[in-house]
Amino acid sequence: MIDIPARMVGLDWGTTSCRAYLLGEDGTVLDRRLDGRGVLALSRSGENRTAAFEQELDDLCGEWLRSAPGLPLVACGMVGSNQGWAEAEYRHLPVDLTERPESLTEVPTPLGPLFIIPGLFKDGTAGSPSDHPDVIRGEETQVLGTLPSGTGDTAAGTGDAADDGAGSPAVVVLPGTHTKWLRLEGTRVSDFVTTMTGELFGLVMQHSIVARLAEEPQAPDLDAFDRGLDVAFAATEPVPAAPTDVATSLFSARTLVMAGELEPTAVKDYVSGLMIGAEVERFAHLWIGEQDIAGGRITICANAQLGGRYARALERAGIASDLAPEDAVVAGLWRTALALGLIDKEDS
Amino acid sequence: MIDIPARMVGLDWGTTSCRAYLLGEDGTVLDRRLDGRGVLALSRSGENRTAAFEQELDDLCGEWLRSAPGLPLVACGMVGSNQGWAEAEYRHLPVDLTERPESLTEVPTPLGPLFIIPGLFKDGTAGSPSDHPDVIRGEETQVLGTLPSGTGDTAAGTGDAADDGAGSPAVVVLPGTHTKWLRLEGTRVSDFVTTMTGELFGLVMQHSIVARLAEEPQAPDLDAFDRGLDVAFAATEPVPAAPTDVATSLFSARTLVMAGELEPTAVKDYVSGLMIGAEVERFAHLWIGEQDIAGGRITICANAQLGGRYARALERAGIASDLAPEDAVVAGLWRTALALGLIDKEDS
Repeated sequence: MIDIPARMVGLDWGTTSCRAYLLGEDGTVLDRRLDGRGVLALSRSGENRTAAFEQELDDLCGEWLRSAPGLPLVACGMVGSNQGWAEAEYRHLPVDLTERPESLTEVPTPLGPLFIIPGLFKDGTAGSPSDHPDVIRGEETQVLGTLPSGTGDTAAGTGDAADDGAGSPAVVVLPGTHTKWLRLEGTRVSDFVTTMTGELFGLVMQHSIVARLAEEPQAPDLDAFDRGLDVAFAATEPVPAAPTDVATSLFSARTLVMAGELEPTAVKDYVSGLMIGAEVERFAHLWIGEQDIAGGRITICANAQLGGRYARALERAGIASDLAPEDAVVAGLWRTALALGLIDKEDS
Repeated sequence: MIDIPARMVGLDWGTTSCRAYLLGEDGTVLDRRLDGRGVLALSRSGENRTAAFEQELDDLCGEWLRSAPGLPLVACGMVGSNQGWAEAEYRHLPVDLTERPESLTEVPTPLGPLFIIPGLFKDGTAGSPSDHPDVIRGEETQVLGTLPSGTGDTAAGTGDAADDGAGSPAVVVLPGTHTKWLRLEGTRVSDFVTTMTGELFGLVMQHSIVARLAEEPQAPDLDAFDRGLDVAFAATEPVPAAPTDVATSLFSARTLVMAGELEPTAVKDYVSGLMIGAEVERFAHLWIGEQDIAGGRITICANAQLGGRYARALERAGIASDLAPEDAVVAGLWRTALALGLIDKEDS
């Protein structure tokens, strides 16, 4: 079945999906299964959660591992949460992503041991109520995959042991249900923040009064998206014209339709613009503006469609961005396996 | 059944409920029915919407009107929307609430004609994307009911015809599913804004990831509410500590529980504080702070529990407030009926 030697299996196992990759030399993708079930579906499947995860793993990777037994199995994401297969630990900030994680959760499976990469944990700062504890599972591996190859990798024996991970600051955004914004100094994560824009957008478009008059667009309506961005940015520049946070601006999606000024099919993209615009505007002013970002650009990890929306909103804020390859997580899984010694650098 | 003469029936007929009042001399409440079904339930009840509204009216007021036939029936609220019984018109801002509405929607019913009070409409300002069209139905009557009696009332023949409705500026907030903030100059509404804080709170506590770990509190937890306020206000004072809009601060309701720093039973009140705090903080800075509010106070129209939360948040922003009587809408219905000549001032 497989013509060139397989080296490992990597899994990006999140809340709503699981993506499995069969990797060969240098982390080349030999095969992939992108339709696996996520933690939410599997943890709901009754008392035998282990059996559900084992079955899903077999469905996705059984064929690979029966062809090439003994391949290391490495996973990141919510599979390591208390809702997942086994609870993996967290690394506490600041964390150099290229350093070998101190602890690794090993889960026995019929296909061999599964290694779950720890998440990241940010402690809250006492006395600062706006600086809360925060958590990441999976995004740390995606971000590692976006770092230039060869940076850090100290534990994997690159000979670059003097590299302490410091470097020019950078910002990475990972849009999704729970969007993550990370601040990096070189390969070291110094801060991150979760924002629930994606989940709120889903709730509003599914259940709110705005959803009642919205009609599904035939195609993405970027003019409507831009109009939403305009409203989000106008709310704060330079002197706010009106008290327009999302809870307030959202009602305009209803009244503009009532007044015949917005098509029902434009509502979804307009609201997307309102909400992404509000998020980006805030991070642009309060997070990106305050530091000298490397190359003046930030990195977006998302599929082209959602990532393109963030790029558009950032451009509106005067900030250039780069879209990371969609499979950045593969490079992150590969580099982590190397750092952990699960695969041998010299063989690769 | 009724010992003192009835003069009219007033209805506050909103989206989720209908409250009916039998009024005597000077608008005294002789009887009330507070459990009527709202527009949402009635408009869903099949093709014969008229029959559903007629039946509900009869259930609430039939007994009164059979005892005292011919009483004027006056209603405000979403009953006059396109989802309601009959679509009533809007008055366009600026509107003097004490002036006789130019148009009135009269609906024939088996109990006599029902008069629906027009709502208020704010046109969007061309070129200002943050200043959208906005609508009100019902709150205008509540606010009229909070105005000192004798102010305005020109059309009802108080002899005060020279009063043009101008006066010192005031702000009224009407918290609810769709909270309304109104700016008044005397008896004239100069501006209003709708914010969907209440609906978003409901969506978050019913459907979001935060809802999954929240437990219903035994009693309101005002300490948790205050903690939410602290986070909301810390986000913007005086130099923002972090990019903490609601979409971002909300995730702390999850991570604080995970970190053992917030009880699951405190989540609901904490989120209430986060969301009301964010709303009040924004209006306090951008709307109230910019004008010299009459007496330095603002008026809150809500029940004691929700109104108390807004008062607490306003106090946190250094703004004093007064809670309007819960039945302010009754006074508004009475005054409107007088202005419309549906009841005779001299008789009262």
